[in-house]
Amino acid sequence: MIAAPYLLYLGNVNDEVGIKTSRGLAVFRPDECVGEFRHDGCELTLGLPRMGFAEAVAAGARTLVLGIANAGGKLGAELVADAQTAIEAGLDVASGLHHRLRDEPALVEAAARHGRQLHDVRDPRPDISVGNGKPRAGRRLLTVGTDCSVGKMYATLCLEKGMRARGMKADFRATGQTGILIAGGGVPLDAVIADFISGAIEQLSPARDADGWDLIEGQGSLFHPSFAGVSTGLLHGAQPDAILLCHDPVRPHMRGLPHYAMPGLEETLEANLRVARLTNPGVRAVGIALNTSKLSSAEAHRMCGETSDALGLPCVDPFSMGVDPIIDWINQCFEPSSRAAMPSL
Amino acid sequence: MIAAPYLLYLGNVNDEVGIKTSRGLAVFRPDECVGEFRHDGCELTLGLPRMGFAEAVAAGARTLVLGIANAGGKLGAELVADAQTAIEAGLDVASGLHHRLRDEPALVEAAARHGRQLHDVRDPRPDISVGNGKPRAGRRLLTVGTDCSVGKMYATLCLEKGMRARGMKADFRATGQTGILIAGGGVPLDAVIADFISGAIEQLSPARDADGWDLIEGQGSLFHPSFAGVSTGLLHGAQPDAILLCHDPVRPHMRGLPHYAMPGLEETLEANLRVARLTNPGVRAVGIALNTSKLSSAEAHRMCGETSDALGLPCVDPFSMGVDPIIDWINQCFEPSSRAAMPSL
Repeated sequence: MIAAPYLLYLGNVNDEVGIKTSRGLAVFRPDECVGEFRHDGCELTLGLPRMGFAEAVAAGARTLVLGIANAGGKLGAELVADAQTAIEAGLDVASGLHHRLRDEPALVEAAARHGRQLHDVRDPRPDISVGNGKPRAGRRLLTVGTDCSVGKMYATLCLEKGMRARGMKADFRATGQTGILIAGGGVPLDAVIADFISGAIEQLSPARDADGWDLIEGQGSLFHPSFAGVSTGLLHGAQPDAILLCHDPVRPHMRGLPHYAMPGLEETLEANLRVARLTNPGVRAVGIALNTSKLSSAEAHRMCGETSDALGLPCVDPFSMGVDPIIDWINQCFEPSSRAAMPSL
Repeated sequence: MIAAPYLLYLGNVNDEVGIKTSRGLAVFRPDECVGEFRHDGCELTLGLPRMGFAEAVAAGARTLVLGIANAGGKLGAELVADAQTAIEAGLDVASGLHHRLRDEPALVEAAARHGRQLHDVRDPRPDISVGNGKPRAGRRLLTVGTDCSVGKMYATLCLEKGMRARGMKADFRATGQTGILIAGGGVPLDAVIADFISGAIEQLSPARDADGWDLIEGQGSLFHPSFAGVSTGLLHGAQPDAILLCHDPVRPHMRGLPHYAMPGLEETLEANLRVARLTNPGVRAVGIALNTSKLSSAEAHRMCGETSDALGLPCVDPFSMGVDPIIDWINQCFEPSSRAAMPSL
């Protein structure tokens, strides 16, 4: 277990998407975050008090969370130096990067010397099996996206909150480092060995005999040339009854790849439904989640309305507008008596 | 480097597909295989002399190749005991299974005591990057399949042999353990971390400035619920100009999954072309390779003819009939002057 409360690391990152892990914790676990650490070159903030390591320890922080992301997940020299300083100040360190803390001798040695813990959140369980594609009990919803980092985790967590507020049973199933830190468990899917992608999701979301929903956090995009294999295995392992499509309407091109255009929403829905049908022929789309954080409220509502009309599905920004229309639609689609009568996309 | 010649392990396996690594070596590296090791319960043979370990050492063997496959790639107790006995008799041991020899203390200790080597062929290079999807120079062909283990490696190797026999430049690029043992290098794709699948293939088949073809060994199937993520990343990383569809016409259901029916050939071609277009919009199908080893010659030729007529592409069993019609078609499709005139599937 990772000891809370946390000091959230921003370092020198100046890319909003690059600090999504730190921000996710600040948003969904506000009570467990005492401050943020950033260098003078960092112009971003989570709205938490800015603190040095000693100051954070004095304020009660027990773990520095390296909540930043970069393609490939390497630890840079600055990050290692900062982590070492944090350890010396009395903090544990948790990281969701591919490159492991335990592979940095300086950190291993410092942690041993100061009696601190290193947590590599991206280490998958050792007992994952190859997926078998067998149908299993219970309802599952998977968030899918036009791209990486378009709001799949936020949408999934907002849906859990909204469903629970209505007394429905719903459980967030985390597949990325931020989600795992928030949920307290899950599978770091992008760190799983390629042959076991779908098996890892079958393990994460096994037969669900109680009613209610497993809400599975999506990863990547079928249209991202770097990560579509992960998204494909995730779709097959999840066997979703429902998919919720997530999109960032101001994203200019596929993340990290200026030479790749964003796919259309309808094209993305169709591709995901086509792939998902292999393991669940009854899969259906239940809504669109737009990340409208960079739009005015008027623009955001207009865009959601137009998208809803164009695709015949509820469309909201789950974070700013709530998820009620999507939950209503899910309950209509999957209420046993009316299920057969629902149109399918 | 793995020391030849080899003793090929069959153990107690009685599933023809389960010994495909041993058989692949016997077929494509006959000069380096001195014998086969099998227990009395094994009713299969590679046509090599049956030998015990000491006998194999006396015949010149230097490495026992654990050329068997099973879902998940676990090492069983019998396999470990046999490998230990082989080491004690004076053999190195090479394995392509997921479960590593180096993770078996008994084998590590025996190898150290007897001065023998353990080779885990499924250890990927440590320097693989995330794929970037950028177009790169040169022609690439990828074999794809309706299922796992339908003859993709055989088809790719036969194509290399056929192209070279005509004086064309062509290089087999291995993505599985058998292929790597045959080629002397490659990437064990199913052992790569999920985020790096396409990047591993970009590394395996970089820009090719000389003319000729990289012939990339396919893996899995877009229609196999356990492994489609691997196949998807492979398609995106390979950026194939050409795909060759491989199929076993007597396979009753998806390998290991009696609850999954085989997909149709046309459906499989369409799905692969659709996925491949993300990184190479000009991709085209150049033929069908049928594994007709369980059919009579008359049946095999009739089936190839019918398949060719139905799909409008050359269709052969590459192993028993050669690959000339496919090479002819490739040369027509990709000869610069006539390229634009070719119909696309």
